[in-house]
Amino acid sequence: MAREQMPLASIIRNQTFEGYLLVRAASQRSGQNGSRFLDLTLCDQSMEVNAKMWDGTVQAPAMGTIVKVRAVMLEYNSKPQLRIDKMRDLAEGDDVDISALVPCAPEPPDKMYSLIYERARSIYDEELRNIILKRLDECKEKLEYAPAAMKLHHSERSGLLHHTSTMLKSAEAICSVYPTLNADLLCAGVILHDLGKISELNYDSMGIVSDYTVEGNLLGHLVQGAAELRRVGKEVGARDELIIMLEHMLISHHDLPEYGSPKPPMFPEAEVLHIIDLLDARMFEMNQALSTISPGCFTDKIWSLDRKLYKPKTVRPRPE
Amino acid sequence: MAREQMPLASIIRNQTFEGYLLVRAASQRSGQNGSRFLDLTLCDQSMEVNAKMWDGTVQAPAMGTIVKVRAVMLEYNSKPQLRIDKMRDLAEGDDVDISALVPCAPEPPDKMYSLIYERARSIYDEELRNIILKRLDECKEKLEYAPAAMKLHHSERSGLLHHTSTMLKSAEAICSVYPTLNADLLCAGVILHDLGKISELNYDSMGIVSDYTVEGNLLGHLVQGAAELRRVGKEVGARDELIIMLEHMLISHHDLPEYGSPKPPMFPEAEVLHIIDLLDARMFEMNQALSTISPGCFTDKIWSLDRKLYKPKTVRPRPE
Amino acid sequence: MAREQMPLASIIRNQTFEGYLLVRAASQRSGQNGSRFLDLTLCDQSMEVNAKMWDGTVQAPAMGTIVKVRAVMLEYNSKPQLRIDKMRDLAEGDDVDISALVPCAPEPPDKMYSLIYERARSIYDEELRNIILKRLDECKEKLEYAPAAMKLHHSERSGLLHHTSTMLKSAEAICSVYPTLNADLLCAGVILHDLGKISELNYDSMGIVSDYTVEGNLLGHLVQGAAELRRVGKEVGARDELIIMLEHMLISHHDLPEYGSPKPPMFPEAEVLHIIDLLDARMFEMNQALSTISPGCFTDKIWSLDRKLYKPKTVRPRPE
Amino acid sequence: MAREQMPLASIIRNQTFEGYLLVRAASQRSGQNGSRFLDLTLCDQSMEVNAKMWDGTVQAPAMGTIVKVRAVMLEYNSKPQLRIDKMRDLAEGDDVDISALVPCAPEPPDKMYSLIYERARSIYDEELRNIILKRLDECKEKLEYAPAAMKLHHSERSGLLHHTSTMLKSAEAICSVYPTLNADLLCAGVILHDLGKISELNYDSMGIVSDYTVEGNLLGHLVQGAAELRRVGKEVGARDELIIMLEHMLISHHDLPEYGSPKPPMFPEAEVLHIIDLLDARMFEMNQALSTISPGCFTDKIWSLDRKLYKPKTVRPRPE
Amino acid sequence: MAREQMPLASIIRNQTFEGYLLVRAASQRSGQNGSRFLDLTLCDQSMEVNAKMWDGTVQAPAMGTIVKVRAVMLEYNSKPQLRIDKMRDLAEGDDVDISALVPCAPEPPDKMYSLIYERARSIYDEELRNIILKRLDECKEKLEYAPAAMKLHHSERSGLLHHTSTMLKSAEAICSVYPTLNADLLCAGVILHDLGKISELNYDSMGIVSDYTVEGNLLGHLVQGAAELRRVGKEVGARDELIIMLEHMLISHHDLPEYGSPKPPMFPEAEVLHIIDLLDARMFEMNQALSTISPGCFTDKIWSLDRKLYKPKTVRPRPE
Amino acid sequence: MAREQMPLASIIRNQTFEGYLLVRAASQRSGQNGSRFLDLTLCDQSMEVNAKMWDGTVQAPAMGTIVKVRAVMLEYNSKPQLRIDKMRDLAEGDDVDISALVPCAPEPPDKMYSLIYERARSIYDEELRNIILKRLDECKEKLEYAPAAMKLHHSERSGLLHHTSTMLKSAEAICSVYPTLNADLLCAGVILHDLGKISELNYDSMGIVSDYTVEGNLLGHLVQGAAELRRVGKEVGARDELIIMLEHMLISHHDLPEYGSPKPPMFPEAEVLHIIDLLDARMFEMNQALSTISPGCFTDKIWSLDRKLYKPKTVRPRPE
Repeated sequence: MAREQMPLASIIRNQTFEGYLLVRAASQRSGQNGSRFLDLTLCDQSMEVNAKMWDGTVQAPAMGTIVKVRAVMLEYNSKPQLRIDKMRDLAEGDDVDISALVPCAPEPPDKMYSLIYERARSIYDEELRNIILKRLDECKEKLEYAPAAMKLHHSERSGLLHHTSTMLKSAEAICSVYPTLNADLLCAGVILHDLGKISELNYDSMGIVSDYTVEGNLLGHLVQGAAELRRVGKEVGARDELIIMLEHMLISHHDLPEYGSPKPPMFPEAEVLHIIDLLDARMFEMNQALSTISPGCFTDKIWSLDRKLYKPKTVRPRPE
Repeated sequence: MAREQMPLASIIRNQTFEGYLLVRAASQRSGQNGSRFLDLTLCDQSMEVNAKMWDGTVQAPAMGTIVKVRAVMLEYNSKPQLRIDKMRDLAEGDDVDISALVPCAPEPPDKMYSLIYERARSIYDEELRNIILKRLDECKEKLEYAPAAMKLHHSERSGLLHHTSTMLKSAEAICSVYPTLNADLLCAGVILHDLGKISELNYDSMGIVSDYTVEGNLLGHLVQGAAELRRVGKEVGARDELIIMLEHMLISHHDLPEYGSPKPPMFPEAEVLHIIDLLDARMFEMNQALSTISPGCFTDKIWSLDRKLYKPKTVRPRPE
Repeated sequence: MAREQMPLASIIRNQTFEGYLLVRAASQRSGQNGSRFLDLTLCDQSMEVNAKMWDGTVQAPAMGTIVKVRAVMLEYNSKPQLRIDKMRDLAEGDDVDISALVPCAPEPPDKMYSLIYERARSIYDEELRNIILKRLDECKEKLEYAPAAMKLHHSERSGLLHHTSTMLKSAEAICSVYPTLNADLLCAGVILHDLGKISELNYDSMGIVSDYTVEGNLLGHLVQGAAELRRVGKEVGARDELIIMLEHMLISHHDLPEYGSPKPPMFPEAEVLHIIDLLDARMFEMNQALSTISPGCFTDKIWSLDRKLYKPKTVRPRPE
Repeated sequence: MAREQMPLASIIRNQTFEGYLLVRAASQRSGQNGSRFLDLTLCDQSMEVNAKMWDGTVQAPAMGTIVKVRAVMLEYNSKPQLRIDKMRDLAEGDDVDISALVPCAPEPPDKMYSLIYERARSIYDEELRNIILKRLDECKEKLEYAPAAMKLHHSERSGLLHHTSTMLKSAEAICSVYPTLNADLLCAGVILHDLGKISELNYDSMGIVSDYTVEGNLLGHLVQGAAELRRVGKEVGARDELIIMLEHMLISHHDLPEYGSPKPPMFPEAEVLHIIDLLDARMFEMNQALSTISPGCFTDKIWSLDRKLYKPKTVRPRPE
Repeated sequence: MAREQMPLASIIRNQTFEGYLLVRAASQRSGQNGSRFLDLTLCDQSMEVNAKMWDGTVQAPAMGTIVKVRAVMLEYNSKPQLRIDKMRDLAEGDDVDISALVPCAPEPPDKMYSLIYERARSIYDEELRNIILKRLDECKEKLEYAPAAMKLHHSERSGLLHHTSTMLKSAEAICSVYPTLNADLLCAGVILHDLGKISELNYDSMGIVSDYTVEGNLLGHLVQGAAELRRVGKEVGARDELIIMLEHMLISHHDLPEYGSPKPPMFPEAEVLHIIDLLDARMFEMNQALSTISPGCFTDKIWSLDRKLYKPKTVRPRPE
Repeated sequence: MAREQMPLASIIRNQTFEGYLLVRAASQRSGQNGSRFLDLTLCDQSMEVNAKMWDGTVQAPAMGTIVKVRAVMLEYNSKPQLRIDKMRDLAEGDDVDISALVPCAPEPPDKMYSLIYERARSIYDEELRNIILKRLDECKEKLEYAPAAMKLHHSERSGLLHHTSTMLKSAEAICSVYPTLNADLLCAGVILHDLGKISELNYDSMGIVSDYTVEGNLLGHLVQGAAELRRVGKEVGARDELIIMLEHMLISHHDLPEYGSPKPPMFPEAEVLHIIDLLDARMFEMNQALSTISPGCFTDKIWSLDRKLYKPKTVRPRPE
């Protein structure tokens, strides 16, 4: 576990900061006296700050990378400004806590990936298992940091793993209530359902989305995900019905055409996939919105939900 | 457990049937020779049949009651007709299996009621617990047979208990995935959410709905249920916030105004209540529709779902 | 009748104002030289103005109260500023014209209340009469100043009485055209239909709304009003059908689910209630919007009506 | 006033009927023995019946005309059949009560027309008055029998006068509540608003609609009525603003585009015209539907209203 | 060109028919005297008729095949019945006019295919040309008879070629008006846009659709067509942008989500593809509906268009 | 052809501009020293600029006129400012290129008008031809500059001619594909369909729209155009069916009620009119939006189309 560093926002004037920061912008510039210096925008989760490094020999670090700095918090034009005394790129052995720098899923990506992978390995139908494992292998690298959205729910580093692994738990829970459901099929659908987002969004290894891709704009992650699934299904030699049913689960998981699904869910596992996807998105958005207000109050209207939310004052869960 | 009787539909010509049947219609009539006889319509789950009892001294049994008969299956105008030799009303000690006569929930009502009642008794907040227990006590008698709908999902004897107890299991399962949910509040919402149906529908003790009540037509079970809940909340002296939040859960559990909710769910437990209500209704309707077709086929279009459903051929759950 | 005072907006530089003003904000502060003074925001209908009272011994009046002041209109930083020479709280015998301070219904509240109350007293059906009279008694105090909305139609002091009493006149007028209507039932519906707003909105005795209440947000005035009506119906021992029909009129008076009604109007008096409610709201909003433009012109698009409005140039009503 | 005749449905076997009947179909035919006879379908409001007149010399009367007959009610193939002994066309001096033969407005057309005409004559603005009087003159003949619809509200002889004259009373009633309304303009709008139906529908002098006209199908009565109004406005030399405002009232009186209005009402009188049109249609449809059921019951779902209606049992208007 | 045969509907009693008929049902049965015979249902475009062949040695032909028969038209139970004297399967050299037997496109399939193929061969971009030619080759065989719909527009043998080739003409015509359009891209989109229907529908070589396929129901021809296109695009090594744009044209060509498109057209050629698809469907449906009525009349309401259609009486095109 | 002048935006500091400019505002004012001068806002297509003419004897030119100026580009308060040395109104013989001053259709108005007029002259049906020619004559003057919209498609000088003449080409192209269409009727519909915009919008001879007219707001160009058409139809003595069909084409050409059409297109030519109107509007808007971005990029969301648009990078039309 990474050693905790001070949040930038807690550093007072003239105090020294030491730790890792994310580079949002960086360029070498020349002062009026001709001397060269570095002008940077650095950030952690708590704030974004302008920084100067007066040593004209230092190269500007790449945008989106993490640097280790020692710096003093000054003030310029009544705004905070960091004067960097030492700065270097990440080196082997550095133990950065990325969640101090950008919004991250609450669990480490490898732990979530393992949970998902182990569930996939336990699938009984060999063709189905081969499809899922192959798709997971293909996506493994990007899944480490891929978020699940540009804004809205799970727009955080490893958000796609977060969303998928939580849904996997819901899927298992629901299957215990409705034993006629094919649990392997449902879990396969959960694992696959948003993998199309990996190529729908442009994001960096911090999980920060800059834009939709051309493919994402023109096709959308439902159609993209179904196409990748079909390709892999053919590659592992799976039977047609299995491939078609999985494609159906992908394109139908938004339920209604106005949310992008060309077909509604036409068998129980496809329906449950849609419902637990809705559930997880709603829980994330509601909890996030409610975290910002006091008990007894309402949030502002939340546009994605078209309503205000209430945080109870006297109604409390059972104490632990 | 009741001794199993032969389904009416399996009795062949001239065979004797002995067992319990439901009276759908009954009247005393006079033949052309002036002799009096009983003309009845009797049924079990397998079929409905005309029956005659030529003994003019027997009183017609009341519609909707169960009678024990011994009879022979004859044919009249190429349709089956029962000739009743013996018939009597139910007596103490009769051990009727009602599920042989009408669609029934798969579990006995007292078992489902106990499960629900025990969950209610475990609620930590005293005011909340008192509300739920009082409402359960008030409704206990009718819950034994009340269905959850006129047509559509859970239109079966004890269907309301069936729907509620399944949702209670889902509620617990979901709370284990999302620990910030107030499980007691959600379970309270589940128990209360459809109790308004008890006075929305006209049904007999077999769980057969004849109609909506005046109150059901003019108010609907959301508003009815919220009004009863408010009354009981005041009676047990519960605090205002608690009563209002429960009323909100009742009136918002259909989510959208076009489905009858004047407000959308405005806190997480209200949202989850809506989602698991939807889930249970969909699972019931889908399983019921799929039970009538063969693997590899589609159902006809199901109007309440606005789609056809598919039953897989080669995609199967893990064998036990 | 209160003596008329000069509108603030008509007071010129160095002129003295004497009269009643509404306190929108007030606090005691210290100047750079340490001397204490009062800093206030005061208003009448014509404008809001900053005011200073340099006498450090005076307590800040409560927000929302009315004060009597003598002051001189000065200018500070090219904005008007009142220098208060004398200020006191309202005293017995003060004859304030509230309509000079905030938007008010065009008739005094007690006159409108009497009109409504007399109509209620003339109801023939004793149970119905008892319900309405009891509800009026309960709400009498708040009706004096309750507005009918936060924004939109009748957001003025006593706006709820204004809206209700105008609709009562329409109800009588319509009943004279359609004699099969039950006039008592319709008038009862009119009187009750928006009483739920009394607890839906947070407002002060000036009729200024600050917010929705928790109950208002979570339930809405339709459900709230129906619940209060049911309670009173039970208290006066009214028969069930009467209570249910009145509840129905309350919850259906917005007509369509997308406007918040879980049921559409299902008998003629409920339908007429909806129609004259719509009529009164539209007349208020249209007249208000048209009062701001010149003949031959169009208003900007009015969002609640989704259209522009036209004020005729040569088409005029019959001169009196 | 016409002498009352017996309703056909009350004539028993072998009883003689004497009175006026409407010809729905008529043709001369030949029997197996070569003799010629008349085969007719005749009706009054109570029933439709086959009739034979065995006198081969009588010409078949025209469809849609009224005949005076003396006939005996017989039976053929267990259905009633009239044997006509005497039959003639209407003659001068015949005093037929058309309302015994087809659904008619409750008041005589000339009385309703006079009420409307007198209101038009009292319009203060000369140009407006001239437009309305000219349109009334043009339509006078057809207004005597024109219905207001093919099915739905006011599909009865003189139904258009019925609908218009009732709305005129509502218009006056509403203007007394909202004195800023231009009563002459509103009444002019009421008189004009459905005159386009005169050429939208194909109907006979009994007020029975057979079809829409080509013009009615391709343009609809809003556009047709506006075009006729514009023509007359130009003919009487009215100013442009007046013509445009009246055209607007015609095309906007269905309010929403999905009900056929290309523009929504954009001044108060246009809005009120829409609202009292809606009111009158709803009152007619609701009263008609409720007239067929018993107190305490609901109608079937009424498709034009998308709901069931309730007729109260214990809630009654004040006795006269 | 095939020699014309008499339509079945024109054959009178005792007349001999000689020609080709389509087998809709056929089985060998035994008469009461034990003798075996063939019982068939045969049809051409004009009618369907029962037929018997009393020669018990003949094998029943397969359903959906064409047979050559010589037969006499008799009558049995006042219905026409064919007595077959000679019958054989199709043989080499038989020159059947299929359009006499089932609804067919107005031009021969090979002519339409050639037109399409030649246009594809003229595409300038090599990768694009290779994709289209390969897809055409793959589908060539089924295109000969594939219809374009189960009901609705172009549900005729070779209807898919008919629809595609007409749209190709419209595409060229539109490109001459809007020269900035990429004509090759648009024509490629036209050729590909409905190829997914080949595997969406179950139909025989007569172009008669029995059903949707499993794949058709679960995915739909937009997603199916896009998947096939992507596969071929990869196979011919086309660049990504080209494949994505073609996929986009396929999935967006129904324009709105409620018509099944998960994305709306996002570049001009995709938009034009949608518009000329709409145009061709509308022209087919309108012309088909109008062919059944007389000038000056309206069709019944056409459900797919939600309107009636009018056929002009005096308004005529320029005579040739 | 007018001699080309330098775009204002390309004139640098102290450079002299000579050419024609459009007057957007102009007034005579007095300086602090009492001397009078002209203060103007002038523009061409490239920019708008403040201008001063210090000669106090010159009259302010009228807003919306074109002036010829010789001026020097200076700077005042770091914004460009023209100092006018010479200025005069347009004179006979001036050869102004209006397209240098405001957005104009790509072809000269007289050329487009001729194309349209010649097509109208070739109409075979005399009554139809007379209607169209008379309407064209009536509108000729305003058509020279009338735009087709306030914002959106073809909001340019002569935009109405541009839109109409392009649609005329599409109409001819489509008629060559569907020979059953009545080409004269369709072309007549195209010419008439938007003529109502001439009186719907307030615009000057530069084609700049300031507002909707009263008539335009209250009736809209569909109803206005149909009324003018009907008047001319009566004036030239055309038969009723022809007038009604043309009125129908006008009021139905927006297709759906939510786009303002009280009736949907009910014969093929009306349908095609709607489709090519849609086509031309979409092509204009898409090409305009795409002209502002680089290949491989997306536009921002375009509100009238509710989508982003893509400009291809490697997919190119056939080189000429």
